[in-house]
Amino acid sequence: MPPASKSLLKGNAAIGQSGGPTAVINQSLVGVIEGLKGFSAVKKIYGMRHGVSGLTQTPAQLVEVGKLSPGRLKAIAESPAAALGSSRDKPDAAYCARIVESCKAADIRYFFYIGGNDSSDTCRIVNEIANAGGYAMRCFHVPKTVDNDLMQSDHTPGFPSAARFVATAFMADSLDNASLPGVKINVVMGRHAGFLTAASALARLRGGDKPADGAGPHLIYLPEVPFDTDRFVADVQAVYDRLGRCQVAVSEGIQNKDGKPIAETLIQGLERDAHGNIQLSGVGGLGDALSDLVKKRVKRKDGKAPRVRGDTFGYLQRCWPDPSPIDAKEARGVGKFAARLARDGHVSGSVAIVRVSDKPYKSAFKRIELTDVAAKTRHMPAEFISGSNDVSAAAIRYLKPLVGKLPSLTSL
Amino acid sequence: MPPASKSLLKGNAAIGQSGGPTAVINQSLVGVIEGLKGFSAVKKIYGMRHGVSGLTQTPAQLVEVGKLSPGRLKAIAESPAAALGSSRDKPDAAYCARIVESCKAADIRYFFYIGGNDSSDTCRIVNEIANAGGYAMRCFHVPKTVDNDLMQSDHTPGFPSAARFVATAFMADSLDNASLPGVKINVVMGRHAGFLTAASALARLRGGDKPADGAGPHLIYLPEVPFDTDRFVADVQAVYDRLGRCQVAVSEGIQNKDGKPIAETLIQGLERDAHGNIQLSGVGGLGDALSDLVKKRVKRKDGKAPRVRGDTFGYLQRCWPDPSPIDAKEARGVGKFAARLARDGHVSGSVAIVRVSDKPYKSAFKRIELTDVAAKTRHMPAEFISGSNDVSAAAIRYLKPLVGKLPSLTSL
Repeated sequence: MPPASKSLLKGNAAIGQSGGPTAVINQSLVGVIEGLKGFSAVKKIYGMRHGVSGLTQTPAQLVEVGKLSPGRLKAIAESPAAALGSSRDKPDAAYCARIVESCKAADIRYFFYIGGNDSSDTCRIVNEIANAGGYAMRCFHVPKTVDNDLMQSDHTPGFPSAARFVATAFMADSLDNASLPGVKINVVMGRHAGFLTAASALARLRGGDKPADGAGPHLIYLPEVPFDTDRFVADVQAVYDRLGRCQVAVSEGIQNKDGKPIAETLIQGLERDAHGNIQLSGVGGLGDALSDLVKKRVKRKDGKAPRVRGDTFGYLQRCWPDPSPIDAKEARGVGKFAARLARDGHVSGSVAIVRVSDKPYKSAFKRIELTDVAAKTRHMPAEFISGSNDVSAAAIRYLKPLVGKLPSLTSL
Repeated sequence: MPPASKSLLKGNAAIGQSGGPTAVINQSLVGVIEGLKGFSAVKKIYGMRHGVSGLTQTPAQLVEVGKLSPGRLKAIAESPAAALGSSRDKPDAAYCARIVESCKAADIRYFFYIGGNDSSDTCRIVNEIANAGGYAMRCFHVPKTVDNDLMQSDHTPGFPSAARFVATAFMADSLDNASLPGVKINVVMGRHAGFLTAASALARLRGGDKPADGAGPHLIYLPEVPFDTDRFVADVQAVYDRLGRCQVAVSEGIQNKDGKPIAETLIQGLERDAHGNIQLSGVGGLGDALSDLVKKRVKRKDGKAPRVRGDTFGYLQRCWPDPSPIDAKEARGVGKFAARLARDGHVSGSVAIVRVSDKPYKSAFKRIELTDVAAKTRHMPAEFISGSNDVSAAAIRYLKPLVGKLPSLTSL
């Protein structure tokens, strides 16, 4: 750890939540608040309404959160989605200069931003602009993303709960698919990183330690592996010939060998967001397009098309109110740890989760530089990928402890 | 109750599961098995693999389920989806004659069929053909459907658990929508009856007794109320103007004033099933089409289109492995009750759930005739509907006790 500054700045603190909400992002909010309690250098603790978007309004949209009762904090911590409101803004230098101005006006000296790699980049720029302008201010990034795509972290808060939802959904849906056999395609969130789609593989365990016979998903397509339409059709045909059914996990971010999203090659008229990304969640298009492909090209033994259905799990994945207990605890912990960095006199930083052991599962937090994580994307490591349509045993070992106990399900 | 036959037929029993699976259909399977235990007239208890489709194969696809251990039965009962496999076949008279032949061949004298109104119709026809042909056989229908559309029942097994999923999903999604405000359209199962879509209204309570301020869903569209595209756009605009966001619950079965499904009027090339019904679940089309409509016609104050997302809950609704405790208990109960009808010498019948009291919630089972329920559809009663885009307080009173305790969620 780099040496901490000796001087403790006196002033207010502000906490913001950014990007897609998660089932445990409020744990991190409450973690920062708890971590700042009794820190005499901090006068008021503000929450930013809708992140930097609310902070930079006139007047600044701030709400005092330092005096909320323990009971109220507990209720907020246990509720999904961003209790303060979130923001999709991706601040550039000019925007960040306005953030610094708003902080000056409200005497905010401690800036905590809970979010993904874009949010850590906001922290980095705000920190640089404040430093360059001579405004003493300390910026801390608190990690959060269901995509699990932050550098330096074993995993990110929010991911284990979303992975728990995905694994549970695939488990129940595989039994559904066995009840009424056909091809079932489920589209999972994850624009660039396949971790969440990989979590579908836990469904094969059906709450136990070993894969259940014939349990889905039978095919898993990740954004890290170039998607080939012909190979996909052949894969589905092979599983269908063998089992009379096929459950498929597809990441919304699958790309062809040229890096072009399959959603884009198969569907017209997709919306783009402020970051220039095409809209992948909150639309059923990719699932429907892949279903159409299977209906047209996969055949039953009698030559007819199989029964094909496509579901897009959508936003339920990220905020389902049954979080992984480990995730809830760690999300609280990273918030507290960030507050601790401030108390210890650090001038900036982000927090990473380190896995200490697998059995029993144990993790720790460490300070990393904002530049270690800002605007970078972590992908599934190669050792987690198996061939063109599956994940490895190493991926399952990595994922299993994170999601908590899943229901034990069976069939005849 | 009509007088029961004095004579008890000796022979085997067979149990089948039909139609879309649910979270608790295996409770009913185990209920019938348990109810037949110690009934000396029954020699073997068979399960039909994939319902009448497996029964009528040569050889008949039957599995003995009467000797499964209590531990195994418990594990099966607590697992979602049809453990025996289900069937989408809709038998006509000729098919039912083959069913009777298969029963004769396996000495099946007690025929239990767990399913919805199509399944009760199968029971009715099989019963008539067996009677007319002089084969002594007794047919019992065990109710099951997430659509809640069976006549004579206060509600149907499977519905409360699906309603629990829908209410939970809307609750979390409304907090998500408040985090990142926009228009969010969620499409819910229910081709003809709006009960499941209506259950979204429970989300407004956020696990408590009174509606939370601003909690969604803000608009609810049922198949029982003719859907008007222009009115829908105006409704969304009005909520958006007021709250800066809007969460919408839409039944997959919404129809225009001429009874034509909106899915059909908005989307091309929909698949039809063996019953001539268009495919509504397992496609994202309706949600995407309604989202496009809102993007084109609803305006923010600055004249731009709002952020719009559409999710189709899909198959997760029916098999999510967190059933309503009341539903699990009642689903087991209707199975046992059907077995009891056989033991008491009834020659046929179906089971209805009667609500005895609301506080505390109490229900009872009663025998009804197969003809009371066969091939009929129950709709939402008029008193459960409020205007063109909501449900009534009576609907919420009806729904609330069924779903069990929901998580208590909050926001700042």
